[in-house]
Formats: sequence, structure tokens, C-alpha cells
Amino acid sequence: MDKIETYRFRVEPFHVDFTGHLFMGVLGNHLLNAAGHHSHNRGWGIDHLNEAHYTWVLSRLCMELDTWPGQYDVVEVETWVESVMKLFTERNFLIRNAETGYIYGYARSIWAMIDVQTRQPANLLTLKDGDILRYVIPAEEKPCPIEKFNTRVRLSAEAETTEVATHYSDVDINGHINSIKYIEHILDLFPRQQFERYRISRFEIAYKAESYLGDTLYLISEKQDGGPSSEVFQTEIRKHVGEASKPEGETVVQAKIIWK
Amino acid sequence: MDKIETYRFRVEPFHVDFTGHLFMGVLGNHLLNAAGHHSHNRGWGIDHLNEAHYTWVLSRLCMELDTWPGQYDVVEVETWVESVMKLFTERNFLIRNAETGYIYGYARSIWAMIDVQTRQPANLLTLKDGDILRYVIPAEEKPCPIEKFNTRVRLSAEAETTEVATHYSDVDINGHINSIKYIEHILDLFPRQQFERYRISRFEIAYKAESYLGDTLYLISEKQDGGPSSEVFQTEIRKHVGEASKPEGETVVQAKIIWK
Repeated sequence: MDKIETYRFRVEPFHVDFTGHLFMGVLGNHLLNAAGHHSHNRGWGIDHLNEAHYTWVLSRLCMELDTWPGQYDVVEVETWVESVMKLFTERNFLIRNAETGYIYGYARSIWAMIDVQTRQPANLLTLKDGDILRYVIPAEEKPCPIEKFNTRVRLSAEAETTEVATHYSDVDINGHINSIKYIEHILDLFPRQQFERYRISRFEIAYKAESYLGDTLYLISEKQDGGPSSEVFQTEIRKHVGEASKPEGETVVQAKIIWK
Repeated sequence: MDKIETYRFRVEPFHVDFTGHLFMGVLGNHLLNAAGHHSHNRGWGIDHLNEAHYTWVLSRLCMELDTWPGQYDVVEVETWVESVMKLFTERNFLIRNAETGYIYGYARSIWAMIDVQTRQPANLLTLKDGDILRYVIPAEEKPCPIEKFNTRVRLSAEAETTEVATHYSDVDINGHINSIKYIEHILDLFPRQQFERYRISRFEIAYKAESYLGDTLYLISEKQDGGPSSEVFQTEIRKHVGEASKPEGETVVQAKIIWK
């Protein structure tokens, strides 16, 4: 079995924003599907793992694109495993136009495997006798020329808080707020003008804890100094815990967006 | 060219709700894609029509399913034109499991063609010398065994109003709130228990006017007498106009849901 999985999709009309470019959430969804196919076809899919009470958990995702695909573009995603450590594996993505070969950009992700019963992380190096190592392509062999994660969210007291209620459409089959929906909620913080003046150059998101249907989310966001030609925003999502009306609850997600 | 277009999709993990069934909005999106392919392949796609300044406008959509597809199911949609009148055309859909042939259900839709410059409806019977009539399959030949539209929304003074702000993710390439997003906003009115106790048997939606990014929507909803084994809800979406703080603005959407 080839170490690289290729996944193809067409940018459908309802999957583009008002500027005519693919929604970032939809791209994220396709990347996760590509990852799912890669794992499944190599005996590491959730269907195989569930029998052994294991599941993959997405820990971090970052995407960096020079240009965003437009309506009706046919896009090809390549995905492969760059490294495997005891508790984490790095999976990369290349995103290109299937017709012209133009590379829109790349993405990186970090995953852990957990035991669904104990919620404890599994040792990826010993699971299935280290079978996963057969699929690793080191960075020297297949580079992913975008920076690794460096989200370090530091918000001042002036950061703005937006309250977001969660509903039926936010939730996945496990009853958790779906990882892609957080991305949509973060982008929905920005006014129309932001999308007209800038494009997203890089987006990083770290998943810290789960939130559930009915939880109230607090999106705390602040603009940072991004230099003359870019704007950088950091966002932390916390969830309401107990009676506290202030957003001092658990951190669910941290994200950074670089607009150019 | 065959009068029926067949469109296939796989139910991806993030496209199912917490009960494990396909989100209705995602099904709606696939139906519209199927319609797009049918029109495009027969010279009636938006790409062909735009040159002549025409575009299709969805006026009504209803879906009636006995069972909803589950995660990883491969679904096949057949779509065809049942009738063409001067200002409207009826397009139907059959939704089945591609592997077993099991028919989940059917859908109906009504479309108008408008001149994008004058916003006036076009005469479908004379456009392109009546070419569209070549693709009609009358109901006797290919039945669509679900009721036609009968949405007649009548809300009492007790109907509950929910205010929904619109954001970046709600809007399509034309800057309009996307037809599928209205469906999501309507379903998001219901608590978890509604989805646990009932399934959606029939959903009807009529699109009356456009709303735009930044508009505040008022979802006015009320339960009706649905008999002993079903629950019927009617919803009207209005948009805020001018200074009025009460939901007396323009009607954007009317919908009816039958839960069983």
C-alpha cells in the first residue's frame, strides 16, 4: 500500500463564500475525510480501531494557502504521516488543483489515539506491533514547507468576548461540538470588510477539551501586531462551567489567524 | 441525453447528526448539486444561462423520507423535471441507497428563472425555443409518490420568536443567506430531546425573499395539532426592516416540519 493517499473533491456552489472562494471549514472537513480514507485503507481507520476501543482524536490543525480554490475547481489532497511519537502522530496534507497541478498550499495536523473507555492515550509505537511506522514518510523525503504549530495564545484584559450558544447543527455523532464548527464560529466573529480586504494566509487551531450540545461558548478574541501587510488575530474558546457568568471556564480551543 | 440525472454521494462522518443520521441541510445541499448537474449537462446550467443574464431561483423544496441515511452510506439521487409552466418548473428527486437499492424517500422542488438585471421572471416555455420541454417526464411515467407543497403558515399571537444574527458562514457567492442555512437555523430551534424522540418525516420550505449578510432574522415558530403520533411545527422567518424592533418585517421563508 502506497504511503500517500490522494483524495479528490469538487468545490460545490454552496461551499464557496461571498468572495467566491472555498470556505475554510469545508476545506478542513475534506482534509479530515482524506485522513479518514488514508487510515481506513491502511487498517488504522476508526472502524478497525473501535473493535479495540480506540479512536483517533484531532489535537491540532493548521492550514496555510497562497490562494484559495474557487467555485467548480477540482481539488486533490495528498495526505501522509510525517512522524510517529509515543502519544502523537503528525499527518501532513498537500492541496493542489487537480487539473493544473497548481499547489494552493499545505496543512499540518497532530493526532492522538485514545482508549474510549479509560480516555487514556494509547502508545502508538506498540499498538499493532508498531505497524503504523511502515507508513511514515520523513520530512527529508516529502517536505511540508509550512511552519509547524506555534499557537501560543496570550490575551489581554481588553480582549473582546462573544457568547455563542450551541445547537443541534453544531454537534457530531459523538455529541461533541464538531471540530469544523469551531472554525466557522471563529470566522463568524469577523465583519464582511475583513474578508473583502484580506485573505486568510494561515490558520492554526488547537483542540484542548470537548464541549457538548447546549454548552455556551465564550469566544475571546484579540488583534495582535501583525506588521504592515498582515493582521493577526488570536482567539480562545472557553466553555461555561457551573454558575460562573464570566468566561473563566475550561479552555476548549485556541486559534490564530494570519490575514494578508 | 437521458432525462434523468443520477448523482452519488457518500455520507461523510461530519455530515451526520448525533443520532448518526445525515443532516437534512447536507441532504438539501446534495439535492441542489444534483439539480445543478442535471441542468448543466442539458445546456440549462447557470454557466450557460449567465451569458444570457438568466439564473435559476429556488422557490420551494420539500423532502419526505421514511428513513434517513446513516454514516458511510452511499446514496444515489435521481433527479428529473416533472413539468414546466410559463414561470415555474417542477423538479423531483428520488433518494436511494446505492448498494441495496432501498428508497429512503423523495423530494420535490419548484424553480423560477429570472433575468438577473431586471429581476423579472423569464418565460420558460419560450426561452431557447422551448428546449426545456424535451426533458420533461410526466408524473404518470415517473411518479414522485409524496404530496405536493401545502405549506400554509398561520401563526397565532402565542408563536415564539427567536432572533438570529447572520454571519460570514451563512452567505453564498451572491451575498444572500444560503437556502440551506435557513434549514439549519430552523432545526437549531429544537432541543436535543426532539431529535431523540422523533425523526423528521417531512420538511417543506418556501423561499419568499432574499436576506443578506448582517440582516437580523426573526424565526417565529409554533407547534400545531399533529394528531397522536406526530408533531407539526410551522416556522416563518422574517427580516428586520428599518427601526422596527418587532418582527413585522418582510417574510423571507416559510417552513413546515412533520416529526414522527
